[in-house]
Amino acid sequence: MAVLFEFSVVPVGTESPSVSRYVALAVKEIEKSGVKYQLTPMGTVFEAKSLAEGFNVIAKVHEALFSAGIKRIVTSIKIDDRRDMERNMETKMESAKRALESLKS
Amino acid sequence: MAVLFEFSVVPVGTESPSVSRYVALAVKEIEKSGVKYQLTPMGTVFEAKSLAEGFNVIAKVHEALFSAGIKRIVTSIKIDDRRDMERNMETKMESAKRALESLKS
Amino acid sequence: MAVLFEFSVVPVGTESPSVSRYVALAVKEIEKSGVKYQLTPMGTVFEAKSLAEGFNVIAKVHEALFSAGIKRIVTSIKIDDRRDMERNMETKMESAKRALESLKS
Amino acid sequence: MAVLFEFSVVPVGTESPSVSRYVALAVKEIEKSGVKYQLTPMGTVFEAKSLAEGFNVIAKVHEALFSAGIKRIVTSIKIDDRRDMERNMETKMESAKRALESLKS
Repeated sequence: MAVLFEFSVVPVGTESPSVSRYVALAVKEIEKSGVKYQLTPMGTVFEAKSLAEGFNVIAKVHEALFSAGIKRIVTSIKIDDRRDMERNMETKMESAKRALESLKS
Repeated sequence: MAVLFEFSVVPVGTESPSVSRYVALAVKEIEKSGVKYQLTPMGTVFEAKSLAEGFNVIAKVHEALFSAGIKRIVTSIKIDDRRDMERNMETKMESAKRALESLKS
Repeated sequence: MAVLFEFSVVPVGTESPSVSRYVALAVKEIEKSGVKYQLTPMGTVFEAKSLAEGFNVIAKVHEALFSAGIKRIVTSIKIDDRRDMERNMETKMESAKRALESLKS
Repeated sequence: MAVLFEFSVVPVGTESPSVSRYVALAVKEIEKSGVKYQLTPMGTVFEAKSLAEGFNVIAKVHEALFSAGIKRIVTSIKIDDRRDMERNMETKMESAKRALESLKS
């Protein structure tokens, strides 16, 4: 069953308030991992086959940023782990949109 | 200057693990507020003209859920408040994508 | 009824990965606001009389950091807003500890 | 080097808005793991020897809650991963308090 993750990293001590270079390094790691993901203006949402797979992706992102010279990372993660039904990023979005439509009608 | 918000609410004590009805109520409030927003599989990203405007949107969402019978809400908010340059959800996304492209080339 | 907040700020673009000076500025604002608060190794927990009061405290912290020269702040907030019973930081902790004790006995 | 974690779980679909029984189950797992931890009114802060160790603790908490009949869990995690100096929950708190004192004097 898919476990949904949302996460974002803030590199601390970068001199410049612009950190898109590091965001790009993070996204590159996510791509390499092969998980299905979606970039948002505030982070990355992805679906993993298990908690362990998702955590592994995030650990790889940390290593990539440390390798790029970052000394400290503050990471926020939200996990939606649901075991009573099969769903993924797409079906969850559809279900929210359907609920919104039925509210309006 | 636009302040970027990401937030999600979890209604506690709903009996069913399916809460899309409440997610829809939240999104409806955001729409009513007039801010530019984007639904993600894990929450809502929106841009506000000020911290106060953004906080006001979230307060309205809480009231809507309590009015719908919810007794307890756990809300997560992330704010990206930047004052050295003008940007919004769209330009922030573009800047991340551009950084990703230049990393690959 | 008390609304419980937890929040932390990450100043972006500080050159040094050590940001305790800015954490201190944030805590000073919280103290000035008069809300009951508790420092943790990862942020600040405080109780407010309302959502509006809590949001106001956080807005003041942002202004203090921008005044100190910070150009960009990434803030994480978690809110526990409960309307079916009166409780606060202290009673919530006690209830968790009591549940833990009864689990062990 | 210690990696600092803060995390909280919200069980979804519990009927009652009171979830301290599940919080207790989570804390029990953390105790069993042997990491140094601290309960706050909004979650748990703990220090792990590595990202992997910390993620493992959180995965164990998920399994414990699913075993207790929970169908869906929304988890929030914040990680402070710093590689330029040795520190832990205690020294981080002291450094914040020291900065606060020097601000006041």
